[in-house]
Amino acid sequence: MKLSDGVEWSVHCAMLLGSLPEHATLSGKALAEFHGVPESYLLKHLKALAAAGVMESVTGPRGGYRLARAPEDISLLDIVDAVERKKPAFRCTDIRRRGPCALGSDAYPRPCGINRAMLRAETSYRQALARENLKALTDEFVETADKRIIALAMEWFPENVRMPGR
Amino acid sequence: MKLSDGVEWSVHCAMLLGSLPEHATLSGKALAEFHGVPESYLLKHLKALAAAGVMESVTGPRGGYRLARAPEDISLLDIVDAVERKKPAFRCTDIRRRGPCALGSDAYPRPCGINRAMLRAETSYRQALARENLKALTDEFVETADKRIIALAMEWFPENVRMPGR
Repeated sequence: MKLSDGVEWSVHCAMLLGSLPEHATLSGKALAEFHGVPESYLLKHLKALAAAGVMESVTGPRGGYRLARAPEDISLLDIVDAVERKKPAFRCTDIRRRGPCALGSDAYPRPCGINRAMLRAETSYRQALARENLKALTDEFVETADKRIIALAMEWFPENVRMPGR
Repeated sequence: MKLSDGVEWSVHCAMLLGSLPEHATLSGKALAEFHGVPESYLLKHLKALAAAGVMESVTGPRGGYRLARAPEDISLLDIVDAVERKKPAFRCTDIRRRGPCALGSDAYPRPCGINRAMLRAETSYRQALARENLKALTDEFVETADKRIIALAMEWFPENVRMPGR
């Protein structure tokens, strides 16, 4: 079981976008450069995040990506669901219906108990991801990060951050 | 993010083994036949379960697999960890150390906050899996399953269940 690398990339991108002034955007190219990741793969994930309503894609020469809502209203679950397309980690293939004891569909009125137990545990995981929000992660980063990193980001911003309509 | 199909197969096998008389075993071939799954792939998982101390492999002509401890002492976490080799779903590639703001190792005394948050959520998942045990799953199955399935299993057992040393 492995989450897509896109989850790590997407959370970093979302945290960066959440630290921009209101309405400001960063292009997919700039987000890829900032994080040292391949632009084409990153764009796939940014599109998924926009489709899921976590980010917004602003078109035009000064367009790019920005968060679709406030960082405190975006959880790690929102990002994981966007990148992983909401598929459960446990996917029951109903092997109880195979082999020498298999019967017709009428013998299985309920989902398999193993499936239900695995999904109960996934619900706990999802609830825990929902409790982690971008604002808290960003606040902790700003408090604890090496100040030189933040200074370097402040140097990088003016060349890359775009204000649509200006 | 997807768990190996081996998790589903392994939980079914463990539940079946947990319903046998003490010391009794089933061969990998019989377990594969009962569940309608490929024997070679299943054997890989049974070996991992034995290596993790969830099952025991009994050698000899009447040997096979059996649980290494009582079903109430085997959780879904034990099985998932054996099959998935205890790897976390989120694997930080430390992309914070790339790009225009990257610094040397001394600038990153702690793991990335995103990694820590993702692993906090995984801890909730693992705790939930640890609360699900084989005995409870088996009891629920016996109470709720179609009685014809249990009758068919009772017919299949005498030809396949082995008692070592007899």
